[in-house]
Amino acid sequence: MSYTLAEIAARIGGRVLGDAGVRISQINTLERADSSQISFLTNSKYHAQLASTNAGAVILGEADADATGLPRIISANPYAYFAKVSALLNPFPQTLPGVHSSAVVGEGAQIDPAASIAAMAVVGRGVIIGAHSVIGEGCVIGDNVVIGRNARLYPRVVIYHGCVIGDNLIAHSGVVIGADGFGIAMDEGHWIKIPQIGRVVIGSDVEIGANTTIDRGALDDTVIEDGVKLDNQIQIAHNVRIGAHTAIAGCVGIAGSTTIGKYCQIGGSAGILGHLKIADNVVIAAFSLIGKSIREAGSYAAIFPFSKTDDWRKNAVHLRHLDDMAQRIKRLEQQLSKQESLKGSTA
Amino acid sequence: MSYTLAEIAARIGGRVLGDAGVRISQINTLERADSSQISFLTNSKYHAQLASTNAGAVILGEADADATGLPRIISANPYAYFAKVSALLNPFPQTLPGVHSSAVVGEGAQIDPAASIAAMAVVGRGVIIGAHSVIGEGCVIGDNVVIGRNARLYPRVVIYHGCVIGDNLIAHSGVVIGADGFGIAMDEGHWIKIPQIGRVVIGSDVEIGANTTIDRGALDDTVIEDGVKLDNQIQIAHNVRIGAHTAIAGCVGIAGSTTIGKYCQIGGSAGILGHLKIADNVVIAAFSLIGKSIREAGSYAAIFPFSKTDDWRKNAVHLRHLDDMAQRIKRLEQQLSKQESLKGSTA
Amino acid sequence: MSYTLAEIAARIGGRVLGDAGVRISQINTLERADSSQISFLTNSKYHAQLASTNAGAVILGEADADATGLPRIISANPYAYFAKVSALLNPFPQTLPGVHSSAVVGEGAQIDPAASIAAMAVVGRGVIIGAHSVIGEGCVIGDNVVIGRNARLYPRVVIYHGCVIGDNLIAHSGVVIGADGFGIAMDEGHWIKIPQIGRVVIGSDVEIGANTTIDRGALDDTVIEDGVKLDNQIQIAHNVRIGAHTAIAGCVGIAGSTTIGKYCQIGGSAGILGHLKIADNVVIAAFSLIGKSIREAGSYAAIFPFSKTDDWRKNAVHLRHLDDMAQRIKRLEQQLSKQESLKGSTA
Repeated sequence: MSYTLAEIAARIGGRVLGDAGVRISQINTLERADSSQISFLTNSKYHAQLASTNAGAVILGEADADATGLPRIISANPYAYFAKVSALLNPFPQTLPGVHSSAVVGEGAQIDPAASIAAMAVVGRGVIIGAHSVIGEGCVIGDNVVIGRNARLYPRVVIYHGCVIGDNLIAHSGVVIGADGFGIAMDEGHWIKIPQIGRVVIGSDVEIGANTTIDRGALDDTVIEDGVKLDNQIQIAHNVRIGAHTAIAGCVGIAGSTTIGKYCQIGGSAGILGHLKIADNVVIAAFSLIGKSIREAGSYAAIFPFSKTDDWRKNAVHLRHLDDMAQRIKRLEQQLSKQESLKGSTA
Repeated sequence: MSYTLAEIAARIGGRVLGDAGVRISQINTLERADSSQISFLTNSKYHAQLASTNAGAVILGEADADATGLPRIISANPYAYFAKVSALLNPFPQTLPGVHSSAVVGEGAQIDPAASIAAMAVVGRGVIIGAHSVIGEGCVIGDNVVIGRNARLYPRVVIYHGCVIGDNLIAHSGVVIGADGFGIAMDEGHWIKIPQIGRVVIGSDVEIGANTTIDRGALDDTVIEDGVKLDNQIQIAHNVRIGAHTAIAGCVGIAGSTTIGKYCQIGGSAGILGHLKIADNVVIAAFSLIGKSIREAGSYAAIFPFSKTDDWRKNAVHLRHLDDMAQRIKRLEQQLSKQESLKGSTA
Repeated sequence: MSYTLAEIAARIGGRVLGDAGVRISQINTLERADSSQISFLTNSKYHAQLASTNAGAVILGEADADATGLPRIISANPYAYFAKVSALLNPFPQTLPGVHSSAVVGEGAQIDPAASIAAMAVVGRGVIIGAHSVIGEGCVIGDNVVIGRNARLYPRVVIYHGCVIGDNLIAHSGVVIGADGFGIAMDEGHWIKIPQIGRVVIGSDVEIGANTTIDRGALDDTVIEDGVKLDNQIQIAHNVRIGAHTAIAGCVGIAGSTTIGKYCQIGGSAGILGHLKIADNVVIAAFSLIGKSIREAGSYAAIFPFSKTDDWRKNAVHLRHLDDMAQRIKRLEQQLSKQESLKGSTA
């Protein structure tokens, strides 16, 4: 598959400068691209590589329009443009529609004839699967699940009964949607299980990374709104709601009944405690625990800075005495201010 | 399925006030319940909702017995009562006993006729599975595993060879029990693997959340005692022992050979280093690393408080200089005390 | 299976003291070993147990050669020696070569006749699998994957298309190799997916723990060099490179495009941000976030020390005022130094 710059611009937009007939078959970094490949500059740190690249063409922002004589496409958002060109050059591999002979499909399931069910998959009773959706090898889709169009479930995704999923879902291997939330009540020395009777409801255009888990609601539903992007190994507890277009990096844990706004960005291994509200457009740094609601857009962090272990040990020991340090500073201030006022009065 | 309040109280206990003939088919929050549903008040924060709820009945503690005129059940522990009513109204779906035609069962396996083995499951040689246990789709049960009665393994659980599991296990999708512990020895520039020849031994009434992993022991066994409740994505290393009725929230990691007491509660994403002993009734806050043994029941924490990133940066920089700050405070105190004593002597 | 001390030393080396004809069938701790078992002393903490052990023989370092009269093998590295003896006594169970009748194998796949493909496994088109490799139950191997000799994939491992793996891989259940990296670009309020067209390339002698995920590269490859050992539930993002013989404990997250040196050791639940370089022989403490490149071998940490929750609360509140505390100390120093110099001038 290859396209000329003119063909690319006709499909994706942007302004071509230089030879629009250059034919491009793949995307690559400035450092590694060859003459059949297009590259891109989105980080001024790599500006110097523009002079030495062997790329056949480049994608540049307006400010860099004249930074090279190479054939180029100018875009207001070269990173998004690069993503679109890459999608054009690297479409999902075609999957033949139909149900593999080894798959097991339950009674009353409605699988669109243009959908594909791979080997070893198990589709429950009453499941509905939309056109062009691909259910990968070994996936297990619980009874009465509804999946929209163009979903792509990689091998070994599990969706528990009754969950509802919009169009264009991408779910990577090992994802578990709709397992029971962690609901237990103490009764005379024993934990009793609280049945989790809510569902997981997922909007459209959501991507979920490998081995991420999203628990079903206890009474109400757990909700993932449109356009949410989840990396690998994220844990989303029961009755969480994640606002549209929020992006969450790997290994994040979100405790039960927390609501996260739209367009938030949460760094890797961060955590959010339960029953909180996080406003729209909040950015949370990696490794930070959010223990209270955040009402205001902005950037938040809670990271202990690393150092050589010997230095860390010397400093960290004082963390158990910070209150004492604070009291001593206050006492020093009082002593000194008393001295000064005495001096004033005796002057 | 529905029950009158009188029928519910006859099964679960509690004292009915008001019309005991009210018929209930589901449980719901005060805010959302309708007249066919029962609700509950366990948090005084929601007291106001008692006046406006449309619930057909409510579960209340003794102190709130007269807080509404609605038909109600009074219980000493309304949260546990709610859990029991929900279990009554939402039993596990019935699963037909027998082995699905696509499942593969090894030689010498003893599967109780009242057990159920779902599609695509693989049961190894010499496995023993008790009555009414359900092995979900795509589960893999290693050779010589023993599983008690009433187990419920959701799809794609793996149990390695030789592990032993009591009655009433609930294991959610993606759980891995009995994989090798992380045992390696450095030998002339190469890591050598230490065979992990212990097992995982799990008591009765244990629940394990999605994608949680419990490693087999190196020489002895890894042990999970009765009534332990584990949330999703927990990692339990080799030779850990978790005491009865301990509950652990999502994403917690417990390193090798650590022993945790009974009735502990461990918050999400917390960690416990290896070879430690944690007493009974210890509560560990979310996100806290426990680096030493805890001999005494109580609540422990180690959380860096979050703030706006600019404030965090301004403050966190001093963490690398805490020891210097402490020295300077001491010097100031010495200087001041010297002044005072000089003043005293010159007075 | 059993060996005399003489037979063991003939295979593994070391010096036998005492009766070399003692026959050993298993390895165990000093505390639990019986007379058919060999034990070992690698930690002086357990020295006292040497007197009371019932072991038939022990493995000791040179310094302890005369610490017991028991039959014994003396080795410069008793821990590695123990690992080798255990491997001798506990070989991988034999697996019959061949493809199970329920497995599905794609067109053009080249499976060595001495390899084994278990029940419910799916092997894609054009896959190459080397001699004596074992593909476990329910594994899914994507199109055109290459796996070397002697690989051992436990049940339910997924390897996405095009990944390349050396000899002797051990991959535990739930491992996902080659899922898409987390690559998204914001475009007018929507995230666009950036196709992940790199691969995962894994060297020889690598072990990967249960439910660990390794993402494929965005443009270039993600690379795991020879001899790397990964514990459970680790997340390795796209374009990470991990140097040979580095060992990483459970629940660690490594963000995109970071390069880690050789012979590093990374503690459990630690994190490393993206686009960093970590030198060879770096040791990172558990639970520590590394936010900048580390150029120098050595030990690094960033752990908030735990305490009783009441104490923690009292101390932690000051972390939001550390900068203020630092300013106040400086002010006190200035005041006091001004006093002193005034005193000097008035003296």
